[in-house]
Amino acid sequence: MELPYIPPLDEKAKQLAAERQALLTKPAGALGRLEALSIRLAGMTGDIQWLPEKRVVVVCAGDHGITAQGVSAYPQEVTRQMVLNFLRGGAAVNVLARQMNARVTVVDTGVAGDLPDHHYLVKRKIAYGTRDFSHEPAMTPEQADQSLQIGLDVLHSELPLDILCVGEMGIGNTTVASAMIAVLTGQPVSLLTGRGTGVDDTALRHKIQVIEDALEYHHPTKDNVLQMVGGFEIGAMAGLMIGAASHRLPVVVDGVICTAAALLAVHLVPAVKGYLIASHCSVEPGHQIALDALGLAPLMDLNLRLGEGTGAVLALPMIEAAMRTLQEMATFHDAGVSGPA
Amino acid sequence: MELPYIPPLDEKAKQLAAERQALLTKPAGALGRLEALSIRLAGMTGDIQWLPEKRVVVVCAGDHGITAQGVSAYPQEVTRQMVLNFLRGGAAVNVLARQMNARVTVVDTGVAGDLPDHHYLVKRKIAYGTRDFSHEPAMTPEQADQSLQIGLDVLHSELPLDILCVGEMGIGNTTVASAMIAVLTGQPVSLLTGRGTGVDDTALRHKIQVIEDALEYHHPTKDNVLQMVGGFEIGAMAGLMIGAASHRLPVVVDGVICTAAALLAVHLVPAVKGYLIASHCSVEPGHQIALDALGLAPLMDLNLRLGEGTGAVLALPMIEAAMRTLQEMATFHDAGVSGPA
Repeated sequence: MELPYIPPLDEKAKQLAAERQALLTKPAGALGRLEALSIRLAGMTGDIQWLPEKRVVVVCAGDHGITAQGVSAYPQEVTRQMVLNFLRGGAAVNVLARQMNARVTVVDTGVAGDLPDHHYLVKRKIAYGTRDFSHEPAMTPEQADQSLQIGLDVLHSELPLDILCVGEMGIGNTTVASAMIAVLTGQPVSLLTGRGTGVDDTALRHKIQVIEDALEYHHPTKDNVLQMVGGFEIGAMAGLMIGAASHRLPVVVDGVICTAAALLAVHLVPAVKGYLIASHCSVEPGHQIALDALGLAPLMDLNLRLGEGTGAVLALPMIEAAMRTLQEMATFHDAGVSGPA
Repeated sequence: MELPYIPPLDEKAKQLAAERQALLTKPAGALGRLEALSIRLAGMTGDIQWLPEKRVVVVCAGDHGITAQGVSAYPQEVTRQMVLNFLRGGAAVNVLARQMNARVTVVDTGVAGDLPDHHYLVKRKIAYGTRDFSHEPAMTPEQADQSLQIGLDVLHSELPLDILCVGEMGIGNTTVASAMIAVLTGQPVSLLTGRGTGVDDTALRHKIQVIEDALEYHHPTKDNVLQMVGGFEIGAMAGLMIGAASHRLPVVVDGVICTAAALLAVHLVPAVKGYLIASHCSVEPGHQIALDALGLAPLMDLNLRLGEGTGAVLALPMIEAAMRTLQEMATFHDAGVSGPA
């Protein structure tokens, strides 16, 4: 399928931001990673006066056939129940989005049950969940493309927009993300697989075995990883990221599943990488491995492992702070403050 | 001097918060450190419905005689110039406080120059800077008490209040903080002293030597550390913390100087510890050492080293998020979501 062109970062805007940072009333570099972030954001948006005003968190939901192998602590029906919770505003991501003044959009990419019409639910169900990748591909090649296209379409329908937070819901999807990260980074499954929503030691060993067996069975490549062992919501998240970057929109990456989607997006269109901001590092070991592979350093370390886009939304005030300090602080000259002796 | 009584944390409110966390629609512990923070905040305030609505950042400013020994990259006059910058709203802490809806109060505890009247400057100058502690005590015992009293008084005048952020400005005060942290933790000066606003290798070695010589000369104890090698603004910050904790107000701790003040406050009234929240860990090596001694884990790791209360103010959205998720999320029962299988 044809994916949109992603422009390179605006080097002139980055330089303007860096020059201004050097004039502000603070020791050079004293705002630490917020300074580097402001320079990157200027490069993404091409505008040192940019602010993250119109904010959306898109939560992509989908189910996974691999749950039949007992890889999750929760039953599959929880995906659908949590989507209903999102629509009623009762989930963590709703609470945080209200606080941070972000809109919530939920996308059904493949929940294993029917959902009501709702003004912020986008219904694009590909199937009632993926197939069980322990013995067949998770989806067809057409379904993989379809999932990416959902992301591109949803991004388009969310415009105009200033910043995109990406989240997900899908029982079993830390298993899927671990399989994808193993293929996309070449790191061993045993190193990057964690407890997801909270399986015990025995179940963790089983989860690792299920993934290792599947990778042995399918021998997925980076090019067919989404189809072989992926998930509908993960394809949609990658499509969202590519679509956002094609519009020069900063993308805030959430947890391990979102970061697996980011790895996929960067494999498909490498220039997407310049538009990604890592919000936090979760306790899932694959998250750090995926962030390292992307060259991204997370802003927070709160031991979150919830997904839904919660970490991404929590990072919005820091992103705003990076730009506001760049824009609103006085310069040494204007404030009449002496420089270093 | 007599310091106020600080009540212990409310164990019943903590238990209520912990019980509610277990009912919310998320895997147990999935909000990571936000969950523990919500439980602590409930314990501090005695109210699981508490929110950080009325917010203030109190920036304590003071000068330091030790700057005569060439320990800082910036000239002493920058303290006064930066206070003027605070009053005009041009410093980083002003920008962040506007974004986070926090009030800014600036306290002159001992700036080495005169300052104009201003509606958010509290004028309590003890002297035009401390004495040079390389050859005499930084202040008299009466001045040390006076600095603590300023903090208690300012806290009182800021009431009613929901949360206190503590910040500072004082050229030379990373040297002072390093000396104090060495005394209050027993760790070696060479391990905990950093570059402050940005001195080079030679100046860093000199800074360490100046501190080591002073500690050798005065042999300060934990009881007289403020008087011997401390600073007026640091005493005031400790007073602010003790005052806030006596009113069950959460205190957000900023950088290395603020954390030195926290160590002093906890030495004076151990129960203050329960009310402290560490916002970030700066690049000053003494900061991590002081946080470890306090048993506090910072929420962010942004390589900040600006002071002013910037890190503390940046943490406010996370503190609000900890309480809002506790209060506003649906329970498994209310949302009809299944628990673990």
